[in-house]
Amino acid sequence: MSTNTPDPHPTSLEELRNALRGFAAARDWDQFHSPKNLAIALSVEAAELLQHFQWTPEAESTTLNRDQQAQVREEVADVFLYLVRLADKLGIDLMSAAADKIELNSAKYPIEKVRGSSKKYTEY
Amino acid sequence: MSTNTPDPHPTSLEELRNALRGFAAARDWDQFHSPKNLAIALSVEAAELLQHFQWTPEAESTTLNRDQQAQVREEVADVFLYLVRLADKLGIDLMSAAADKIELNSAKYPIEKVRGSSKKYTEY
Amino acid sequence: MSTNTPDPHPTSLEELRNALRGFAAARDWDQFHSPKNLAIALSVEAAELLQHFQWTPEAESTTLNRDQQAQVREEVADVFLYLVRLADKLGIDLMSAAADKIELNSAKYPIEKVRGSSKKYTEY
Amino acid sequence: MSTNTPDPHPTSLEELRNALRGFAAARDWDQFHSPKNLAIALSVEAAELLQHFQWTPEAESTTLNRDQQAQVREEVADVFLYLVRLADKLGIDLMSAAADKIELNSAKYPIEKVRGSSKKYTEY
Repeated sequence: MSTNTPDPHPTSLEELRNALRGFAAARDWDQFHSPKNLAIALSVEAAELLQHFQWTPEAESTTLNRDQQAQVREEVADVFLYLVRLADKLGIDLMSAAADKIELNSAKYPIEKVRGSSKKYTEY
Repeated sequence: MSTNTPDPHPTSLEELRNALRGFAAARDWDQFHSPKNLAIALSVEAAELLQHFQWTPEAESTTLNRDQQAQVREEVADVFLYLVRLADKLGIDLMSAAADKIELNSAKYPIEKVRGSSKKYTEY
Repeated sequence: MSTNTPDPHPTSLEELRNALRGFAAARDWDQFHSPKNLAIALSVEAAELLQHFQWTPEAESTTLNRDQQAQVREEVADVFLYLVRLADKLGIDLMSAAADKIELNSAKYPIEKVRGSSKKYTEY
Repeated sequence: MSTNTPDPHPTSLEELRNALRGFAAARDWDQFHSPKNLAIALSVEAAELLQHFQWTPEAESTTLNRDQQAQVREEVADVFLYLVRLADKLGIDLMSAAADKIELNSAKYPIEKVRGSSKKYTEY
């Protein structure tokens, strides 16, 4: 196994980011990975994931059969891979961006004000 | 600070997942978080992220100004939060799903075959 | 009113296409309207439309209040405008493309085979 | 050919809407066509259309080969069919919604102010 083969078993976001860097570099695919193109790819994969729930009644969407679960797991992975890759290209640390957003959301939706209400969700 | 306040500074995927569980539980929002609805939300957030690159020439999409960078970082975080939440609801381990997908992609796109080629990307 | 002002009251797809041509030409916006960019814009607008139904229970999505209806109508229009513009740029006649697709779908989903079944829709 | 077979050659938006009503009714598919589900389907089809331009340089997106053109034409049709169907379910007249939106956009983007500028498009 050559030294620039990406590690197929990352265990942290940093290792995953590095694995994807290696994967693209080994294939000379960086030329295609502009933030614009990666944002398109992310959006396309998110839609492929959504497609699995397209006609499923909401209540049934929690109980996928084995085949559905395997397919959905792959789509979830695709979204994750493109998200990690895009964040890398933009110099964004995913975990700290997430932490900051949770803080913003905590302030925006105070527990005592929104508890049990769907107001946020409909916004009308 | 009450004990059920979600930790705003997660440092791992597991902590982030738990923070989001706490966030939703504290607001009684689990009732809205069916996989179907979360998949919609993920797709909508991915499109909001894409919107920032909508009319930007590809080459310019790598150099965002400070304001753009801050906005894009928030959208990236939104996608990430919904992805972690959806994966949790579906019982999917994000890191192992990613590792498995990288292995699949390695077999699907062998370096010697696709190196420097955009064939995968156009598929025509 | 100058002669190249787009007619704001098109009554056919052809008139609408021409109105949008005039609109873009008058603003010198053709330079931004590559098929790639228009396809992004279409996708972004479709997501903005979807956002209105994001957390709405399926059954309630048929009964929008006056404000929701007005907002959704605008999003529907946005999708339509970008679709007409993209089809124009690609030399696609929307009505004949639609007629051909209905024929394809009629063959693909024969009434006697799919009637009352959601098989098409889940595809699993 | 039975009388409730949808006309496969609509020549106006109204005929197309009626053809799609017949198509769904003949298959008993109205039960799946809530506005929420149709908005999902529309968004998914828009992403499938976008996928064709995913890695294509912007300049090349105007010159599709014969195969690409045929595929893209089908995706454009899919978006159109779901848009017509969704508008029908919501009681929205597509042509008048489009005309109203063009008027709004004309006021929002006055020619003398935005001509030749991409300001609208970046919005930053």
